[in-house]
Amino acid sequence: MLWEVRVSYKRGVQDSEGESTLKGLKALGFGGVEGVSTAKVYLIKGNCSRGDVEEICRRLLANPVSQDYTIRGIEGEDE
Amino acid sequence: MLWEVRVSYKRGVQDSEGESTLKGLKALGFGGVEGVSTAKVYLIKGNCSRGDVEEICRRLLANPVSQDYTIRGIEGEDE
Repeated sequence: MLWEVRVSYKRGVQDSEGESTLKGLKALGFGGVEGVSTAKVYLIKGNCSRGDVEEICRRLLANPVSQDYTIRGIEGEDE
Repeated sequence: MLWEVRVSYKRGVQDSEGESTLKGLKALGFGGVEGVSTAKVYLIKGNCSRGDVEEICRRLLANPVSQDYTIRGIEGEDE
């Protein structure tokens, strides 16, 4: 199975990389850009269920205080 | 407009964060996981065209030696 996990910042949490990117774009002359936010994607391949991936997110990939995650089955989800 | 840029490693380029995540998952007992790869997502909001976003990727977001990128219009693409 192949799963895609996307980890992003909760609303109101500072996204430093997004802010830095915005500053960089302004400095490069892209004045039309109003905001940049970032997220991290993990593609997880192997013999694991959606429940396993939920647990992986909770235990390793996402900080429950500051981050949200979504899980999407890309190939071979059997539930 | 809202654009989604996704930056990932080219095939054959080491994805250290993916490898570390895989090791962590094995250590946590998720033995079924065979591989993890990562990507970075940037959501770019503002008055910019697809051509602008292409230029942003080339100049700031992606390393042409080691990374690939995809661009997707999420809202308001006018071309």
